[in-house]
Amino acid sequence: VSTFLALGAAPSAWTQAATPEQLVARALADNRAHAMLSELLAVAPKRLAGSPGMDRARAWAVATMQAVGLQKVRVEEVQVPRWVRGEVASLRASLPDGERGYDVVALGGSIGTPADGISADVLEVKSFEELRARATEAKGKIVFFNRAMPRALRNTFLAYRDAVPQRGQGAIEASKVGAVAAIVRSMTTALDDYPHTGALHYEANVGKIPAAAISTNGAQALAAALASDPSLRLTLRLDCATHEDVACGNVVGEITGAERPDEIVLCGAHLDAWDIGDGAHDDGAGVVHCLEAARLLLVHKVRPARTLRFVLFANEENGLRGGRGYAAAHEGEMARHVAAFETDSGGFEPKGFSTTLDEKARAALVSHLDPLRALGFGALIEGGGGADISVLQPFGVPLFGLVVADHRYFDFHHSARDTLDAVHERELALGAAAVAAFMAVLADPAALPEK
Amino acid sequence: VSTFLALGAAPSAWTQAATPEQLVARALADNRAHAMLSELLAVAPKRLAGSPGMDRARAWAVATMQAVGLQKVRVEEVQVPRWVRGEVASLRASLPDGERGYDVVALGGSIGTPADGISADVLEVKSFEELRARATEAKGKIVFFNRAMPRALRNTFLAYRDAVPQRGQGAIEASKVGAVAAIVRSMTTALDDYPHTGALHYEANVGKIPAAAISTNGAQALAAALASDPSLRLTLRLDCATHEDVACGNVVGEITGAERPDEIVLCGAHLDAWDIGDGAHDDGAGVVHCLEAARLLLVHKVRPARTLRFVLFANEENGLRGGRGYAAAHEGEMARHVAAFETDSGGFEPKGFSTTLDEKARAALVSHLDPLRALGFGALIEGGGGADISVLQPFGVPLFGLVVADHRYFDFHHSARDTLDAVHERELALGAAAVAAFMAVLADPAALPEK
Repeated sequence: VSTFLALGAAPSAWTQAATPEQLVARALADNRAHAMLSELLAVAPKRLAGSPGMDRARAWAVATMQAVGLQKVRVEEVQVPRWVRGEVASLRASLPDGERGYDVVALGGSIGTPADGISADVLEVKSFEELRARATEAKGKIVFFNRAMPRALRNTFLAYRDAVPQRGQGAIEASKVGAVAAIVRSMTTALDDYPHTGALHYEANVGKIPAAAISTNGAQALAAALASDPSLRLTLRLDCATHEDVACGNVVGEITGAERPDEIVLCGAHLDAWDIGDGAHDDGAGVVHCLEAARLLLVHKVRPARTLRFVLFANEENGLRGGRGYAAAHEGEMARHVAAFETDSGGFEPKGFSTTLDEKARAALVSHLDPLRALGFGALIEGGGGADISVLQPFGVPLFGLVVADHRYFDFHHSARDTLDAVHERELALGAAAVAAFMAVLADPAALPEK
Repeated sequence: VSTFLALGAAPSAWTQAATPEQLVARALADNRAHAMLSELLAVAPKRLAGSPGMDRARAWAVATMQAVGLQKVRVEEVQVPRWVRGEVASLRASLPDGERGYDVVALGGSIGTPADGISADVLEVKSFEELRARATEAKGKIVFFNRAMPRALRNTFLAYRDAVPQRGQGAIEASKVGAVAAIVRSMTTALDDYPHTGALHYEANVGKIPAAAISTNGAQALAAALASDPSLRLTLRLDCATHEDVACGNVVGEITGAERPDEIVLCGAHLDAWDIGDGAHDDGAGVVHCLEAARLLLVHKVRPARTLRFVLFANEENGLRGGRGYAAAHEGEMARHVAAFETDSGGFEPKGFSTTLDEKARAALVSHLDPLRALGFGALIEGGGGADISVLQPFGVPLFGLVVADHRYFDFHHSARDTLDAVHERELALGAAAVAAFMAVLADPAALPEK
């Protein structure tokens, strides 16, 4: 008997019937998720951790949690990096017929270049293996990582996983072979003029070099130019810089469990966003999934057996200090976290949920998802949650993520296109209803036993 | 054992392994479906049946069928209505603070108004029941059908079904109670300024009155104006007109069955489109689903046991003469049509298939869809095919339709927004792969026995 089917008869913690179908109908009819997103993006379109926009976003999140009726609303302080993009991001090539510019943005966390830029020859590679094989050619050059996300893969997240190491680790690998800068093809299956940012990493004992993302059309054009003139020189200019850490905070609110208030089901998303778009899908959608899910449960007077703790993390994109700070502050409570869920894959049509649970535990949970499956979002697949909650895994907390239609996500992800109009109000509302319904399941000890 | 899993071992009509996964990978990598759609919309953005654009679309379809390698490519002539929209579509209200205009378009098939328009008082209703109850108020007035598609329904096609009778039958019902014209709220769940056209019907012995669709924002504004001034007068001007029938044609091509060439599986879509957008989703997407499915099967050297007959119908939107003409021309073959499939729900992510088969026959077929289900488009639900093939149902032909994600469809359907940029290349490619895989199943006698 599922959580939902049992509502009438069982000695349930639910005080009123609220089937997933009712949650869906309410979410679609009220259309609050998109209205909330519109508010957030008006208040704080730019909200990189440590920025003034993030301060406004946090204030909005506190007020919205209070408005929907969450309890114990608070900000839990964390220190976050403060990286500032600056004003200059330019990549120019000297071609036989004159200069040409390409659309680029600094990768998040990159150091800047000297004011007059870095000029060098170029080595184009498609993989780290190729870079290492051609290490002797790289010295003193700009390495151009031009590996495309493989289009043929059905799942764009797998395609992302294939190509994204060149963004995260490219500056390290290029520096190791003596390169002076890195240019990285943007992470998207689309061919267009929008560069996509995202975090890069540096490594202790490996010299830091600046790195920028080039649009996919730009990457194609640059590759063509290099094919006809391998001695072409590029000049990269960036004025981004990292400053001292600053205070920021995770925003937290709760629905106290009616039967097992000490057992916690965490429902999270990240409030920060890259600064070249408005973070509508990444992760504004996740933020309003959580807030609207809370509203839906409260409007329907659902009282879960366990405590639902909603957490909007401060710093997922560049540092993961939100998740780490949460884990540190709540270390003593970790044994009582029976589940942690994060929504951070965009505001598209929900399909179901990913989880770190083993096959046996999945099989036990899946029977409770029949009513969700009937609505199109009941799949339960092996996988992780979001990056923020990944830091809870060492404590043995089972992780869950929202799985949504993924075809369009990387068109927008980390780019200037990630704006309100990219999010469809019905798809967003359905996602919020799916989160609400799933939280009700996770909060039910019959569906998910204690660890 | 399914069609696909058996490819290696079974005495199959397939000459080469082509798993659904391979079809998907090929469709995504080649990205031909969107390129085809781009071609069609460049050649014939406007292609209402009987228009010069339709002649160009037909020539393109013939050439494309030949290019992908279909056999017996031909045009089968049908006569179609020729309705011409004209240049004028205006709705103006006399308000206390002056005149105000609303965004309207003529409904397809509507008669025009006198050149200086029809001016009358307004009766707003939400249903035919309300209209009949208030019949005495309707005489001499313009009836304003302002029933919204119910937002709370999970399935937008059900919401459409709830509201669309006011568009199809509104002019008849309004005329019966003595009204002089009808204004119909557009069929969309979105609130915007785009009016959506679509066919209206007239009835013998009921006087024809002109009818236009108003945008949803316009409908809201008009309702508000009426609430504050019930005596406001509207003036409707339309210069559309119906002319003599003209010759048009269904475009047909085949992959001849390797084992049972006389048994036919029809794979269809409609080539005509409403004329205020470019018919990108409706039904350009369906057209390229069919053409790209044919290409995928031929590229992979799949040889189905039964004949696959691809039919691009001439006239779905206003008259259904394409389907009717096909049924008349092929009446003697109807017993050999083992299945008819149509894709006419937009170029969104495929979910599965609808069918008129009874529960027992569905259960037999569903086991052959496991590899499709693994790719996300293996659902088999009760339902019909498209309008074109509905005329084959009286002959006992089982009907099938493509089921796709439906949240966005009515944002575009029959409106000026139905353009190329509304169709996502990956979703369109997946749809084509789904059609190819499903045609392979239907052409397999082990999966679908003869009728």
